Amino acid sequence: MDLKNYLAKKRELVNKALAKEFAQFGKMPKVLYDAMHYAVFSGGKRIRPILTLATFESCNGENLSWILPFACGIELIHTFSLINDDLPCMDNDDYRRGKPTLHKTFNETVAILAANGLFAKAFELFSRSKAPPLRRIRAIRDIAKIIGAEGIIAGQYKDISQERTIVRKEIYQIHQKKTAEFIAIAIKTGAVIAGASDDKIKKLYQAGIDLGMLFQITDDILDTLQDKANQPTFVKIFGFDQAKAIAEKFAKKASQKFLTLGKRFIPLWAITDWIAKRSN
Amino acid sequence: MDLKNYLAKKRELVNKALAKEFAQFGKMPKVLYDAMHYAVFSGGKRIRPILTLATFESCNGENLSWILPFACGIELIHTFSLINDDLPCMDNDDYRRGKPTLHKTFNETVAILAANGLFAKAFELFSRSKAPPLRRIRAIRDIAKIIGAEGIIAGQYKDISQERTIVRKEIYQIHQKKTAEFIAIAIKTGAVIAGASDDKIKKLYQAGIDLGMLFQITDDILDTLQDKANQPTFVKIFGFDQAKAIAEKFAKKASQKFLTLGKRFIPLWAITDWIAKRSN
Repeated sequence: MDLKNYLAKKRELVNKALAKEFAQFGKMPKVLYDAMHYAVFSGGKRIRPILTLATFESCNGENLSWILPFACGIELIHTFSLINDDLPCMDNDDYRRGKPTLHKTFNETVAILAANGLFAKAFELFSRSKAPPLRRIRAIRDIAKIIGAEGIIAGQYKDISQERTIVRKEIYQIHQKKTAEFIAIAIKTGAVIAGASDDKIKKLYQAGIDLGMLFQITDDILDTLQDKANQPTFVKIFGFDQAKAIAEKFAKKASQKFLTLGKRFIPLWAITDWIAKRSN
Repeated sequence: MDLKNYLAKKRELVNKALAKEFAQFGKMPKVLYDAMHYAVFSGGKRIRPILTLATFESCNGENLSWILPFACGIELIHTFSLINDDLPCMDNDDYRRGKPTLHKTFNETVAILAANGLFAKAFELFSRSKAPPLRRIRAIRDIAKIIGAEGIIAGQYKDISQERTIVRKEIYQIHQKKTAEFIAIAIKTGAVIAGASDDKIKKLYQAGIDLGMLFQITDDILDTLQDKANQPTFVKIFGFDQAKAIAEKFAKKASQKFLTLGKRFIPLWAITDWIAKRSN
């Protein structure tokens, strides 16, 4: 398959849908709108919503009005999470994707309020999907759980609050909570909204965890090359070569899981391969 | 009716349900759990969830498993909102309800993460209500909209970012966005989940706006007495006497709207009267 073209098409679909949502926003202080817009349209690769769309299609989902609100909402929650990560009291990052972070471009107050606005908008979008109501509710419940204090937030906290040396087991947990579970829920949501069987949903979620681990370890490796790692990473704990080997192991695990699900899941296999080989 | 007893019973219902949720939280860093617990159990009057429960009952709603998750989730979102309001980059408050604010007791990082955890938990609770799926989705959509960038967040931004003198019309808008619409949505949610008619839902929402304005102006008046007002308030803009008169006007408007809905709505009328006369 022509993955580059596939990704570009899906990315355009997501970008257009997000732009439409922004165009339909009601009255609000201009700076809040500008801040939300800056954060959402700052060159993200849209990997999570693309995974949602790809999984939906692979599970025979057809109606875009069912899944696009979920794909877009997941990207908004991801953006919310990045804005928070960058804050002075968190990672205190000045740049994100080569541009000044939101609190640097505006200020901390606006950054926090804009992030919260994106968070709320995500759940509004989820509720406005045209998918069968019980599937919508199941997806909302699962997403809310994963992004909560037992999920991403626990990962964020552990990531920035180490008072001592991280041991090997802990870095797996941090990456799983901080990154892999959210990638996995992006995939799972596509399957839930398409009405896949519980068995298939479970397998896809597990493959998503492997893919998410691959994604984060690859990030660790790329960050090292750019010499900007100031947090616990697989490279720091295992060394460069072993980190690469672990990433390859997760790539293989994810690929195999997607392939055993059948031909329709080839796009997910191809995306896994692309993530394993990515250079930015 | 014995309002004091009525409020105490409803408050206990909410507190028990919230405590049960906290007991069922999964594994997470202890400090996150402690911070969320501190914020949620710090002496709140539970006015919003009580309004949700009262409206549900007044609209002939019977099943607590339908409405309690919404009542509790609304209180969690309210807490999320207060934690954010108190942050150094927002109002920079050291005390809330006579106790150190969350970022003072823990730190800013933990406060923001705990707030986000409560926000996510609220939507998980909404989705776990046993109410008919379409009612659940409608309520989730309406709540997400009200707490978003067009709603509460716009109010918060305007509240803390005045670069010039607030004019009379603006203070109405700020209070409506910041406080009244959320009180109104707490009421509306009770009606939506009970399956009230669209006409009744609309009337209740409008009464809720009046009640919310009354609530915030009363707050302004009480804050003046405590000499801690450092934000735009009705007292600052209209003076003490006129602010009291405006509060009374909203009390009358809300009372009348509740009373015209019939005998079953007497609790809401009584709560309005109680809020008008409150002294803390």
